[in-house]
Amino acid sequence: MSGIAGIFADKSGAAAYLYYMLYALQHRGQQSCGIATYNDGLMDYHKDYGLVSEVFKDERVSTLRGNLAIGHVRMASHGEGMDFQYVQPIVAGYKHGALGMVHDGTITNAKKLRNDLQENGYMFQSNLDTEVIATMIVKNYKESMKQAIIDTLDCLMGSYALIIMAQNVMFAARDVYGIKPLSIGKLDGKYVVASETCAFDSIGATFVRDVEPGEVIKISEDKLEVLRAGHPEKRKLGVFEMVYIARPDSIIDGKSIYLSRLNAGKYLAKEHPIEADLVIGAPDSGISFAVGYAEESGIPYTEGIIKNRYVGRTFIQPNQEMRDLGVKIKLNPIKEYINGKRIVLVDDSIVRGTTMKRTVAMLREAGAKEVHVRVGSPMVKYSSNLMMDTPTREELVAAMHTKDEIRDIIGADTLEYISLEALFKAFGGDDFTQGCFTGIFPEGTLYKGE
Amino acid sequence: MSGIAGIFADKSGAAAYLYYMLYALQHRGQQSCGIATYNDGLMDYHKDYGLVSEVFKDERVSTLRGNLAIGHVRMASHGEGMDFQYVQPIVAGYKHGALGMVHDGTITNAKKLRNDLQENGYMFQSNLDTEVIATMIVKNYKESMKQAIIDTLDCLMGSYALIIMAQNVMFAARDVYGIKPLSIGKLDGKYVVASETCAFDSIGATFVRDVEPGEVIKISEDKLEVLRAGHPEKRKLGVFEMVYIARPDSIIDGKSIYLSRLNAGKYLAKEHPIEADLVIGAPDSGISFAVGYAEESGIPYTEGIIKNRYVGRTFIQPNQEMRDLGVKIKLNPIKEYINGKRIVLVDDSIVRGTTMKRTVAMLREAGAKEVHVRVGSPMVKYSSNLMMDTPTREELVAAMHTKDEIRDIIGADTLEYISLEALFKAFGGDDFTQGCFTGIFPEGTLYKGE
Amino acid sequence: MSGIAGIFADKSGAAAYLYYMLYALQHRGQQSCGIATYNDGLMDYHKDYGLVSEVFKDERVSTLRGNLAIGHVRMASHGEGMDFQYVQPIVAGYKHGALGMVHDGTITNAKKLRNDLQENGYMFQSNLDTEVIATMIVKNYKESMKQAIIDTLDCLMGSYALIIMAQNVMFAARDVYGIKPLSIGKLDGKYVVASETCAFDSIGATFVRDVEPGEVIKISEDKLEVLRAGHPEKRKLGVFEMVYIARPDSIIDGKSIYLSRLNAGKYLAKEHPIEADLVIGAPDSGISFAVGYAEESGIPYTEGIIKNRYVGRTFIQPNQEMRDLGVKIKLNPIKEYINGKRIVLVDDSIVRGTTMKRTVAMLREAGAKEVHVRVGSPMVKYSSNLMMDTPTREELVAAMHTKDEIRDIIGADTLEYISLEALFKAFGGDDFTQGCFTGIFPEGTLYKGE
Amino acid sequence: MSGIAGIFADKSGAAAYLYYMLYALQHRGQQSCGIATYNDGLMDYHKDYGLVSEVFKDERVSTLRGNLAIGHVRMASHGEGMDFQYVQPIVAGYKHGALGMVHDGTITNAKKLRNDLQENGYMFQSNLDTEVIATMIVKNYKESMKQAIIDTLDCLMGSYALIIMAQNVMFAARDVYGIKPLSIGKLDGKYVVASETCAFDSIGATFVRDVEPGEVIKISEDKLEVLRAGHPEKRKLGVFEMVYIARPDSIIDGKSIYLSRLNAGKYLAKEHPIEADLVIGAPDSGISFAVGYAEESGIPYTEGIIKNRYVGRTFIQPNQEMRDLGVKIKLNPIKEYINGKRIVLVDDSIVRGTTMKRTVAMLREAGAKEVHVRVGSPMVKYSSNLMMDTPTREELVAAMHTKDEIRDIIGADTLEYISLEALFKAFGGDDFTQGCFTGIFPEGTLYKGE
Repeated sequence: MSGIAGIFADKSGAAAYLYYMLYALQHRGQQSCGIATYNDGLMDYHKDYGLVSEVFKDERVSTLRGNLAIGHVRMASHGEGMDFQYVQPIVAGYKHGALGMVHDGTITNAKKLRNDLQENGYMFQSNLDTEVIATMIVKNYKESMKQAIIDTLDCLMGSYALIIMAQNVMFAARDVYGIKPLSIGKLDGKYVVASETCAFDSIGATFVRDVEPGEVIKISEDKLEVLRAGHPEKRKLGVFEMVYIARPDSIIDGKSIYLSRLNAGKYLAKEHPIEADLVIGAPDSGISFAVGYAEESGIPYTEGIIKNRYVGRTFIQPNQEMRDLGVKIKLNPIKEYINGKRIVLVDDSIVRGTTMKRTVAMLREAGAKEVHVRVGSPMVKYSSNLMMDTPTREELVAAMHTKDEIRDIIGADTLEYISLEALFKAFGGDDFTQGCFTGIFPEGTLYKGE
Repeated sequence: MSGIAGIFADKSGAAAYLYYMLYALQHRGQQSCGIATYNDGLMDYHKDYGLVSEVFKDERVSTLRGNLAIGHVRMASHGEGMDFQYVQPIVAGYKHGALGMVHDGTITNAKKLRNDLQENGYMFQSNLDTEVIATMIVKNYKESMKQAIIDTLDCLMGSYALIIMAQNVMFAARDVYGIKPLSIGKLDGKYVVASETCAFDSIGATFVRDVEPGEVIKISEDKLEVLRAGHPEKRKLGVFEMVYIARPDSIIDGKSIYLSRLNAGKYLAKEHPIEADLVIGAPDSGISFAVGYAEESGIPYTEGIIKNRYVGRTFIQPNQEMRDLGVKIKLNPIKEYINGKRIVLVDDSIVRGTTMKRTVAMLREAGAKEVHVRVGSPMVKYSSNLMMDTPTREELVAAMHTKDEIRDIIGADTLEYISLEALFKAFGGDDFTQGCFTGIFPEGTLYKGE
Repeated sequence: MSGIAGIFADKSGAAAYLYYMLYALQHRGQQSCGIATYNDGLMDYHKDYGLVSEVFKDERVSTLRGNLAIGHVRMASHGEGMDFQYVQPIVAGYKHGALGMVHDGTITNAKKLRNDLQENGYMFQSNLDTEVIATMIVKNYKESMKQAIIDTLDCLMGSYALIIMAQNVMFAARDVYGIKPLSIGKLDGKYVVASETCAFDSIGATFVRDVEPGEVIKISEDKLEVLRAGHPEKRKLGVFEMVYIARPDSIIDGKSIYLSRLNAGKYLAKEHPIEADLVIGAPDSGISFAVGYAEESGIPYTEGIIKNRYVGRTFIQPNQEMRDLGVKIKLNPIKEYINGKRIVLVDDSIVRGTTMKRTVAMLREAGAKEVHVRVGSPMVKYSSNLMMDTPTREELVAAMHTKDEIRDIIGADTLEYISLEALFKAFGGDDFTQGCFTGIFPEGTLYKGE
Repeated sequence: MSGIAGIFADKSGAAAYLYYMLYALQHRGQQSCGIATYNDGLMDYHKDYGLVSEVFKDERVSTLRGNLAIGHVRMASHGEGMDFQYVQPIVAGYKHGALGMVHDGTITNAKKLRNDLQENGYMFQSNLDTEVIATMIVKNYKESMKQAIIDTLDCLMGSYALIIMAQNVMFAARDVYGIKPLSIGKLDGKYVVASETCAFDSIGATFVRDVEPGEVIKISEDKLEVLRAGHPEKRKLGVFEMVYIARPDSIIDGKSIYLSRLNAGKYLAKEHPIEADLVIGAPDSGISFAVGYAEESGIPYTEGIIKNRYVGRTFIQPNQEMRDLGVKIKLNPIKEYINGKRIVLVDDSIVRGTTMKRTVAMLREAGAKEVHVRVGSPMVKYSSNLMMDTPTREELVAAMHTKDEIRDIIGADTLEYISLEALFKAFGGDDFTQGCFTGIFPEGTLYKGE
């Protein structure tokens, strides 16, 4: 899971704008971040582990000069260790100059592509799929960057949103099904690109349109050229973008994330009503669903659990003894309100079940008479590295257990999931990649070669 | 504005617990923090500018050994400059050993007391009222610490909650009216003290009782002795503790902060109903009031404004050009939902009016048809350093303007404040220091000598 | 052991000059440092553990505004722990304004003075003698700062060089015997003060004169007033300033440190000649003595041991296994040159004997045929906190052993010390505090009360 | 200019040893450093800008696990900017596993090789010659690493010492003429490799032999296999290794650096005697020459200029005003000794002449009656990126001026250089690359293609 952005700005000022865009996309990844700039033929970059506010201290932004910038925030590495193995952007020199690239998504045949290249005498300095893609583009380059990019994308399976920076030009592309989001905006007449529209709001840019599934676009400051047309009819956005990845104030493929979740909450109330005193949302992403559930059911919505805003990445973990004491460091229920009440606890999804189990127990301790769990997405039965920083199938509680078993595992009085039909109604369409619920993934996204 | 805490724990482990207590109290002050420990006759401490997570990195906590610890978080200094001028705890050696102290509140005659001491040949190494109090206690010490503390407290005007650490003993005291909160809890049979009960939850301690107004308490691990009885009938907690300072999950003087604010929101809806489509709370402290307003009015509550969780202290401020572009870095409205709607915007209070003005403008830009502002506390007409990190009277918008003028200044369609009577009903009593609304402060809290 | 400095400079620029002065005095203390400035009625300061280059990063110097600055570097704390217990300057407010102070030396009756003050109701926020002196000055203040300082100094036993900063004025004082050095210089017509003249060279200031033993001076920018006359006839500079504390390029009380050590080396050669092939100085402070020994004896001087310039404070210590391997991390002998040679190894002094033992062993391993140790000061038989960061008497190898025993302990073929008479000839006088050699300290410097 | 090292150690402990080796090699480069380790099939690394003590803080060393480690320190980047453009080691994955590489030297045809590879569809993520070499080895790999390395080395012009780390095996190679040094040692029966022997001393390893010019060696823990024989008869070590790069306590190609410089000082005294009072070495690298000059001439050697040991990389530069005041921050002459004396100032070389000019002026200011400059290497008339981090020819004072002109430029009374013949006698041979003196470089080292 990553967030990506790119921008054309006035001479030498692009990095400052990109800094704010990455701030707005920080929810898509907190582990590492980076910015690369293009300045009059040369590229510069800075990237490191840490939040945007940590990596770009000390006027480091102002030393990144140039009118074109791309950037990246990243969630988790799939295995720690080698320095900068997983930190983007990739910046490289090739025969026609410099090249920068950021990538969100998972190339499911990346390992094969990497092996093929290695067999042909190439080496790789990171574990990033991004490096594989960049290497292929450079290798495929014959007459034009356009053809090199298209030839390379034709080889990729899986999901991707890509921003490529070359000589005063930026390319944007989205996988065939548009599993990963990518939007186009404009600021002062110049183009900007970002994973989500909230990044446009963060710099005062206006939304223009989404990059279409399969589309490849070339942007030169204020000119936009479609290199390969998209095919909106194939659109299948990853459903978890709607459910929990994207920020509520973003609009993806024409759909308001906030309204989609609010509606899902309402449908959930219709499908699975219950008599109760209070509706509580599991912080943070369950709240929109809970507000919808409350509105539809007429049961009052309340903040029943307070989240400590200051608990960050660098928090010292409490020892076992303290955990045994039932410490409430990150989350603390409002005991006086919950005590003796029948609670509807709404969350966006249940993956492993461990967080939900802890939350239910916390409400019970606070004196809740009943805890009814309602989930804003169907049972997650199938694992896929296409869409999530994925647990194995064994770790998915719904892959191994029935709904009733899960209810007992998490300690709820009742447990209900929204149906897929209702979810699609709430989201205004069924054009989503939702194999995690059904096991059926769009054709050609999963690599079966190994 | 500060948060304070103290704890008896097992040999050498007190600092770790205090670290989590300060985390829980971080909302009471983000500028500086510190911990002092008592270990077998000696005291050690560490304090610095920054958040708890920044100051106590790198195993600094584990080097603070001892079974007794006190700590502090602090909001703003009244003027920057000299190093550690405003950073607590104060730790000092005196004739009978070492002494540590943390303090929340404002001693209104501190300047006079400081001058008197200076006239008598004393010097001060900080601008802290805490240092004045500690100096007086040491100077007043004759036969017993008990008498020295009581003699000293008798000279103080204004508000205070105090924790004093001496030789394996801790003293806790609250001003005559209990303007500043202070609660007692227990963990593993040993006593803990904190500004708010949420700090007890953070370590799994249980609430015992509040320190009473005017009460002075001595605590020796598992023994609690009342040195001077409190007088609950004089209780006048600072009303802003209820309105916005305290965390919603805390209970102060028997009142749930969350329920008090929720109720205030309900009364506000009763007193000042309006026909509208949505209720929105101004992040963060307006939300509890908004949820109450929504519940009472039947108008749906919604998160209409999304707050970027990752914008912290070290954020680089956008330049004027970006501000002119209408950047939405910290807060971003859900345009699709707000557009065309009639909005009730609920906040806890209006002080200078500048934030509210920006928020109303943000909703208008997002397409709100009407914006009706409802405020969960009366007009703040009087300034007092007793309770807030105070603006001057000239800065208080309600001191200089009528309600209608303020409505125009902030750009709202309508503007209404809760009445003081309703607020007291919501808070379940009128025993509050509320001079900021009425200009009438408890007798003897303001020093008139200069 | 500390280094101190003070300067009047142009409006707001004093801190920058003081920064370079502290750099020049860094050899007098590497553990902590600090600068305080006076700016138009207010004082500001910054101090922390670390080297000058570490503590004053990030333009911290430029935020310390003012035309008057004092500063301090400090060696070792006598026991770690409480934050800033040992970090100077002390800055405090008293009845007539602000006061800053830095101090080099040891007040031998400090504990008694501190206890007396505590009995009278004073507290102390550090373990610094400096705080005791400052507290006394403030307490003694009646009509004038001049009298308060003189009255206070009259109570002090032991050694001190002091710089006090008040309202646009600076006081400088030296103990009765001038055990600690302090010199006056001038830059652009304004006065500067420092422990050693090398600090004047570091900013281009010119030397004016030394502060005399017992003298108290008041400096107001370009005016110098003697508040109490010195008595040069009592002069007894701490002999270890000459032997190893001061920098070779400094001049103290009219004596060139470099020439004094060079001469001592020559006298050592005269008193204790030996037939040998090479003269080597123990890095770093033995080198001047070795050059003198070589010149007098005619035996070639050579750098036989190379010091790694990059081994600093933050160096990770090698484990036991590596130490067993005979690692040469800090010092490495030139084996090819030493092998088969008869070496004269010259050092300034032998205190515990452990370093010398390692150095002799290192030369033996490198193939030295003979190692003759020559020491540029007499046997250190008596301990005194007056002059050194002192080992106990039991730790002094010469207090517990005869010269022959020491020779065997360190593994030398021969061992000789310079005589006290020769040392005094080399240093051009006998006006030194040298109780560490003789056990006889100047009258009134040692406190016998406990 | 770089320093490189590699070591086989016990399971998981190699990085700690390498840390000390890099410390010992820190004089070969202070700008950046890095360590890569091989651990059971996987490689890990850490590298950054800064000194070894700065980059490898906080137990970062202990997280680098493995029994095999290589490392690097680097002088200056030829143009700042892109992150990690110039920081080694390079670590990459290729078809048979992982590969790590460190490199000291300059590949004069690197640009052509890079361009050729780019034309063939390769990209480069740094400006390092090391990446070019690694890319070629991987591309050339067919049957064996041995052949791939040899085929690659055959394409390289210029100078190099290389350490390559693969699957539990290490390769070491030196360019055809051995322009860059590389030595082999042994610790606990396992092999270590380093640019200089002082790195062996730093860990207690013993010297085995030098890698021969043109030799390629494969090391598997305790086994050493010569893959391609060296040809000692072609040996032409870069003469500046002898003159100033290497540490005095190292032995390169059988020559003691210290004795070589001492001898050069003696020959210099024989060729260019002068009547004078004192011999002073320019700190630091002129000192060995000065000691030799003094010994031969009979004029006493002295430390006439004191260097501040604490002035490091992070030093704040004095402003122009201070420089005008003649600040002596880094170096300070012993005025009392120099005043009125006739000085012989000995340095290893004169490149631009600016440092020497400042030093002569400093001695004049200190009162030197005469300053006679003697230089331990011939006039540097030719520029070459083969050996130094090179100034352009225009910057070489001896390329643009006669000896007499230089004497006037630096302000000396007399100026003399050692002759090339004498230098070779002092160094015990003429097998050096010394084109900087003569303009004649070993055949095939300079690329003429562009």
